[in-house]
Amino acid sequence: MERFQISMKEKDSVHVFAPATSANFICGYDVLGLALNEPGDEVYLKRVDKPGIRITKIIGDQGLLPTHPDKNTVSACVKMILDFLGKKNYGIEIELHKKMPIGSGLGSSAASTIAGLFAINRLLGEPMSKKELLPFALKGEELACGHGHADNVAPSLMGGITLIRSYHPLEVINLPVPPELCCSIIFPHVEVQTRAARQILKNKIELTDAVSQWGNIAGLITGLFTEDYNLLSRSLQDKLIEPTRSILIPEFEAMRKIAMECGALGFGISGSGPSVVAFTKGIDTAKTITIKLTELLKDHEIESNGYFSFINTEGATALS
Amino acid sequence: MERFQISMKEKDSVHVFAPATSANFICGYDVLGLALNEPGDEVYLKRVDKPGIRITKIIGDQGLLPTHPDKNTVSACVKMILDFLGKKNYGIEIELHKKMPIGSGLGSSAASTIAGLFAINRLLGEPMSKKELLPFALKGEELACGHGHADNVAPSLMGGITLIRSYHPLEVINLPVPPELCCSIIFPHVEVQTRAARQILKNKIELTDAVSQWGNIAGLITGLFTEDYNLLSRSLQDKLIEPTRSILIPEFEAMRKIAMECGALGFGISGSGPSVVAFTKGIDTAKTITIKLTELLKDHEIESNGYFSFINTEGATALS
Repeated sequence: MERFQISMKEKDSVHVFAPATSANFICGYDVLGLALNEPGDEVYLKRVDKPGIRITKIIGDQGLLPTHPDKNTVSACVKMILDFLGKKNYGIEIELHKKMPIGSGLGSSAASTIAGLFAINRLLGEPMSKKELLPFALKGEELACGHGHADNVAPSLMGGITLIRSYHPLEVINLPVPPELCCSIIFPHVEVQTRAARQILKNKIELTDAVSQWGNIAGLITGLFTEDYNLLSRSLQDKLIEPTRSILIPEFEAMRKIAMECGALGFGISGSGPSVVAFTKGIDTAKTITIKLTELLKDHEIESNGYFSFINTEGATALS
Repeated sequence: MERFQISMKEKDSVHVFAPATSANFICGYDVLGLALNEPGDEVYLKRVDKPGIRITKIIGDQGLLPTHPDKNTVSACVKMILDFLGKKNYGIEIELHKKMPIGSGLGSSAASTIAGLFAINRLLGEPMSKKELLPFALKGEELACGHGHADNVAPSLMGGITLIRSYHPLEVINLPVPPELCCSIIFPHVEVQTRAARQILKNKIELTDAVSQWGNIAGLITGLFTEDYNLLSRSLQDKLIEPTRSILIPEFEAMRKIAMECGALGFGISGSGPSVVAFTKGIDTAKTITIKLTELLKDHEIESNGYFSFINTEGATALS
């Protein structure tokens, strides 16, 4: 990593937002991801005299997240950056406002990781660029969910639609965002652990299926550059991962049918699920789909959270 | 297929060229292909009074190609189009000037197929567009080499770099061609049948390898749109097909080493081989690589044909 210069003053306190994300973009398993306008996590950092990193408050996690500073991804990320920059004996108090569901397939741990990294960098006067923070985000993800995949942390940090062209070495590319591209997201209240969702995948796939998949991913990238929504729609197919993972998601096919009838460009699993995502041209269609899918689940006595959003092109941002 | 109108007059004779092509573009097995400026095939068609389709001459095939009108892909394609258009009792004489090696991995059968289709369409006053000819090209390929893959016929017909996003239904997309993109092609005189080369491939692949491959294909498409030659270079990798097929190609690793030392963006197998291809920024580098690789093979007593070329953006063209 290159050397950097501290160009801004350190602050006493910061308040930041890191958005939820939807990984895979249906046909880009493990390489594509995109950021949402909502939901997301907020982190407050406060500089205090007493050395050490403390989590003073976690709101909205229903008691699910660890509060020990070594085990919580926010505090662990704060510590990583302080250690890396040789900042000793800093006193930092952390509040995490978890404003999104955990274990949802919306990059919950990634949003916390990015909020922590972005906040400490801002508190220190932004000595590092967003790109320089990315390798630390991978380490934070590894701590939080046992693997260092970048398809949620990259879009949460950088915003927009991101391509992980390569993991070794890490190369992240920001793709163009067609201006009318929106999505509807539904999180049905059934929990699917990322780890479990990965484990049910087969290690080997048919070459012919892989060929279909890279035809689709090439079509998707082309559609993003040319703003061809019909091409995006034809490319938004996943015959590899979806057949296995969708069995964990209630009413998956019924939701797809409704979404497509409402005019969705494509429908599939968000990340490792159980959230589902429908991509649309325009926010009105996304809103309609969100309403109809939450109603469908309610009819089946399944609680859910519904969101609709343009693609968030900012990524992590400062709120104060 | 939509109805068409005959807008140009029929001709008494035509002379056309269809270019050689390089399928796969290293990381796009079965979905990407591109057209070369040379070599290629030429076809002469002449309208005669005596009904029936006859091959009067084949030059340059070393006696390898069938001359029976039902078995040669040129005459079979001429017949297909006449039948489709309901043109009965036409008398057509065909000359095929085979100006490229057969079984080389340069789309030899595709060039003949496309030359035949393009020629008969032109002779009839161009009742069909290039896109409308494409499904017939797949049938011609099936006749010539036992499978209807479009990754050679599409670029030979349309020119440029083509993406087969889907085979069922067939969807071909023309991708942007960075203006300085060139390639060096070497055909070592060892024969590898497409059918045999396909058979040694494994039917199943590792999911992790597939993920690398679609990261690379997404990077490649992005590089084509942004004219980012460094990104193209990083993306031009094939860990799936090359390890198996390259064992059929003499001095493969030695050729790669020289090509990369000369400044190639990437090096790999052209189609199913045994031709190899190096992609370059600029024609001078392509020329240097072509010279050095043919010399290397000569040192190992292997005869070869060498070519260097910009990407051919025209595809099949009329010569008279």
